[in-house]
Amino acid sequence: MSGKTEARVLKGFRDSLPKESIARARMLQTIVSVFENYGFSPIDTPALEYTSTLLGSGSGETDKQLFRFMQGKRDVAMRFDLTIPLARYVASNFSKLSFPFRRYHIAPVWRGENPQRGRFREFIQCDLDIIGSSSPLTDAEVMLAISSALDALKLGHLMRVNSRKVSNGWFKELGLSEKSALVLRELDKLEKVGRDKVRQDLIDKVQTSQEEVDRIFELIDCQGQSNKETLEKLSSLSQNHPDIQLGVEELGQHLRLCGELGLDENLIEIDLSIARGLDYYTGIVFETDLKEDSIKEGLGSIASGGRYDNLVSRFSSQELPGVGASIGLDRILAALGESGRISGQESSTKVLIFNMGGDISHYALGIVSELRKAGINSEIFTESSKLAGQFKYAEKKGIPFVLFAGEKEQNANTFSIKNITTGEQMDDLSRTSLVEKVRSTIS
Amino acid sequence: MSGKTEARVLKGFRDSLPKESIARARMLQTIVSVFENYGFSPIDTPALEYTSTLLGSGSGETDKQLFRFMQGKRDVAMRFDLTIPLARYVASNFSKLSFPFRRYHIAPVWRGENPQRGRFREFIQCDLDIIGSSSPLTDAEVMLAISSALDALKLGHLMRVNSRKVSNGWFKELGLSEKSALVLRELDKLEKVGRDKVRQDLIDKVQTSQEEVDRIFELIDCQGQSNKETLEKLSSLSQNHPDIQLGVEELGQHLRLCGELGLDENLIEIDLSIARGLDYYTGIVFETDLKEDSIKEGLGSIASGGRYDNLVSRFSSQELPGVGASIGLDRILAALGESGRISGQESSTKVLIFNMGGDISHYALGIVSELRKAGINSEIFTESSKLAGQFKYAEKKGIPFVLFAGEKEQNANTFSIKNITTGEQMDDLSRTSLVEKVRSTIS
Repeated sequence: MSGKTEARVLKGFRDSLPKESIARARMLQTIVSVFENYGFSPIDTPALEYTSTLLGSGSGETDKQLFRFMQGKRDVAMRFDLTIPLARYVASNFSKLSFPFRRYHIAPVWRGENPQRGRFREFIQCDLDIIGSSSPLTDAEVMLAISSALDALKLGHLMRVNSRKVSNGWFKELGLSEKSALVLRELDKLEKVGRDKVRQDLIDKVQTSQEEVDRIFELIDCQGQSNKETLEKLSSLSQNHPDIQLGVEELGQHLRLCGELGLDENLIEIDLSIARGLDYYTGIVFETDLKEDSIKEGLGSIASGGRYDNLVSRFSSQELPGVGASIGLDRILAALGESGRISGQESSTKVLIFNMGGDISHYALGIVSELRKAGINSEIFTESSKLAGQFKYAEKKGIPFVLFAGEKEQNANTFSIKNITTGEQMDDLSRTSLVEKVRSTIS
Repeated sequence: MSGKTEARVLKGFRDSLPKESIARARMLQTIVSVFENYGFSPIDTPALEYTSTLLGSGSGETDKQLFRFMQGKRDVAMRFDLTIPLARYVASNFSKLSFPFRRYHIAPVWRGENPQRGRFREFIQCDLDIIGSSSPLTDAEVMLAISSALDALKLGHLMRVNSRKVSNGWFKELGLSEKSALVLRELDKLEKVGRDKVRQDLIDKVQTSQEEVDRIFELIDCQGQSNKETLEKLSSLSQNHPDIQLGVEELGQHLRLCGELGLDENLIEIDLSIARGLDYYTGIVFETDLKEDSIKEGLGSIASGGRYDNLVSRFSSQELPGVGASIGLDRILAALGESGRISGQESSTKVLIFNMGGDISHYALGIVSELRKAGINSEIFTESSKLAGQFKYAEKKGIPFVLFAGEKEQNANTFSIKNITTGEQMDDLSRTSLVEKVRSTIS
C-alpha cells in the first residue's frame, strides 16, 4: 500500500496492553463477585443516547463535555455517566423490572474533559444502584457493597459521608437556597484549594457576603474528632431547625445501619465538606479516599455516590427514589500502575510447547491439544526460531513452563519440561505425570 | 421537574435486561476461558479513533456506516470492527508486544447499517488474532480456538473454509484480477440469493461476459461431496496454474493441521463460495454456521475470519502477517433468545431475607451480612411489603431461598428458610446449619 497512515491515538484516550488488561479484568471480576454477593444484577445500555436524554441532567460541566453529533437527523451523544442512562432505562423498561431494582452496570463512559492524572476521556465506570426504595437501609447497602468491593481489591479506604439535607437545610436557613448548588461547588474544593481560597471564591464568584460566609463555615466547623462528636455538634447547631434536624437524624441512622450490616466504624467518617459535584443528589452523599499515602496523593475520590430522589421522574410520571454509587476503576488502576503495584503477567499461558525446528510434529500438536483439554492454558511456538528466542518469549510473557516434544521425546513417547522460574528440568515424563506436574505447580 | 423527556432508545440500539446481561456475561466468561486456554491475552483500544485510521480499510460499505463526527478540530469516528484498531495498536505499541502476538479483544463496535435480525448498530465482537506469523499453524490455531469456544457454548457448528489464493488465482487466470473484489462480493451472496441471480448480477453489475461467468462457476463446481473429493477436483483444475496450486496446497495443509490439533473433521468443510466481504483477506478464510436448523435459519455466519497479510503495513514499515477471527456473540444471543433457549435467571441472588415489618432488626441485618461473608449471594427486602409481594419478588428474580428472621426466630436465636422451588420449609436452623443447607443446595 502506498502512503502510511500515522498510528495515532486520540488525546485523552489510550490503548490497554495485555498486562493492564489482565489486571483490569481480574479487578472487574472481583467487583462483579461482590456486587452479586449483595444481590445486584447486571444490565447494559447503549453507548449512544439522544442528546436530549443526557443534556441538562448532570451538571453544566458534563453538558459541555458531551461527545455530541448528528447521526442522520438525530442529535445523539455518547453517555457521560451510567446514572442518567439508568434513569432513562428504568422509565423505558419499567414493567419488566423487579422493584426495588438492584442493578450494577460496568461500562465505558466518555467525557471531553482535559486529561489529568488518572482521568481520561474514556473510562470505565462500575456503578451500582437501588431504584424504587426510600428505605435508609438501601443507602447503607450501597455503602457496604462499595466498601466490600474495595476490601476484596485489598484497597484500604475511608468513606467520607454527608447529608445534602444538612447542607441544603443550612443554606435555606441562611437564605442561600438559590445559590446552594454554587456554594456546594465551591465547598467541594475545600480539600484541594484550602479554606481561604474557598472563602474568597464564595465572596467573589458566588456573591455571598462576609457574614454569610462566616455562617456557612459555622456548619463546616461542626466537624468533630469523631462521628459521635460531629453528630452532637450538628444536633446543637440544628436546634430549632427541623429541616436540618432531619438530615442530622439521617446521618445518625445511616451510620447505625452501616454498622449493623457489618461496616467497620473506622472506615466511615462524617465529613461536612462533602458535597458531590452533581446537582441531582438529595440525601446521603459520600466519597471514598484510599488510605495509603503513597498512592492517594492527588488522586481524589475513588468511589462516590449518594441518594437522588427525583431522577427517574425526568422521564416518567413514576416517582422513583434511588441511591447509587460508582467505583472509579481506571483511576485506581492508574494509581496502582504508577506506584508499581500492578504485578500481573501479560499472559495466563502456563505451558509453551517449544518448536524444535522443521515442521512441527504431530506429536507436539497432540500434547498441546491434550494440555488444553486438561484445562491447562497452553501455546505452541509457531516459528522456527532459536531456542534462546523461544525462552525469551516465555520469560517476557511470564509463562512458567516450557515443554520439549522433539524427536528424542517422541521416540521415547515421553516429554521434558522446564520450570522457568526455578530452572528445574524434568525429563522422561509420561502424559499423565506431565499434566499432574504442571497442575500441581500452577494451582 | 417540568416537562418530561421521552425515554427513547435510538433506532438499532437496545437495552439489555438483567436476564440477558447475565446470559451474555456467562457466555463471555466461557469464551474468555477458551481463548486463554489457547494462549491468547486480552487488550483494549479506544472506542474512538481518528477517522483516517478507520477509513478505506474495511470495505466501501463499512466506510459508509461509520459514526463519524468532529471533536473540536479532530475528525473522529467510532470503531466499526476490532481488526483495523488492532493493526493500528500493533503499530503504536510494537516495541512493547511479544511476537507472535496472540491477543483477544471483546468489545462493542458500531455500524450505522440498517437493523435486521440479530444485527444491531451496536454489538459486541469477540475477536482473536495472531500477528507476526505466516506459519500455517497459526491459521489452524485460530480455527481451533473458535471451534472450541463454540463447543464450550454447546453450539453445534460447521466451519466452511476456503482460500483466497484459490479464488484470486482463478480470477487472475481468467483475466479478472481487477474485478476480483467485485466478483467475490457477488459470490458471497450465493447462498442467500441463489445461483441464477448471482450469474445475472455478475453480468449486469460486474460486466463479466457469459463465458467468464461459466468459467467462474467451473471453480465453484469443484465443490465435492467430501473435503477429499473437493481437493482432488481442485488439484485437477489447478494443473498448470501454480498460483492456484499454492492455494489448494494451503487448503489441504490447513485441514491436516486442524485435524492434528484435534478438530473433528466433521466440523470443517471446504466451501469454494466462501469469500468474506472484507477486502483485506489474502489466504485462508472461513465462516461458521450453527448446525441446528431451528435457530440457524436466516442467521448467517456466527463466527468468521481469515488471514490478512498486509494490514499492519498500512500504519507501519513493518510487514506483519496476521490471521484472526471473530465470534458474533450478539447474533448468537439474539437467535438463542428468539428460540427460547436463554433460560437464565434475572439475578444470581440465592437467599432473600424477608422483611417482617417495622424496622428491620439487628438480627436480620446480622444474618444477611453473615451469609454474604460465607460467599452466599444474599439480599434483604428493604420495603415493608406484604409477604405475598416479597414471595413474588423472589420468584420473579429466581431466588431459590427465602429466609425468616423475625421476632420469633430472634427469641430462639434460630432461622427459618423456605426453598421456593420445592416448597420445603426448614425451621429452627442454627447459623451454621443454615449456611450449610443453603450451600449444599446451590452448589
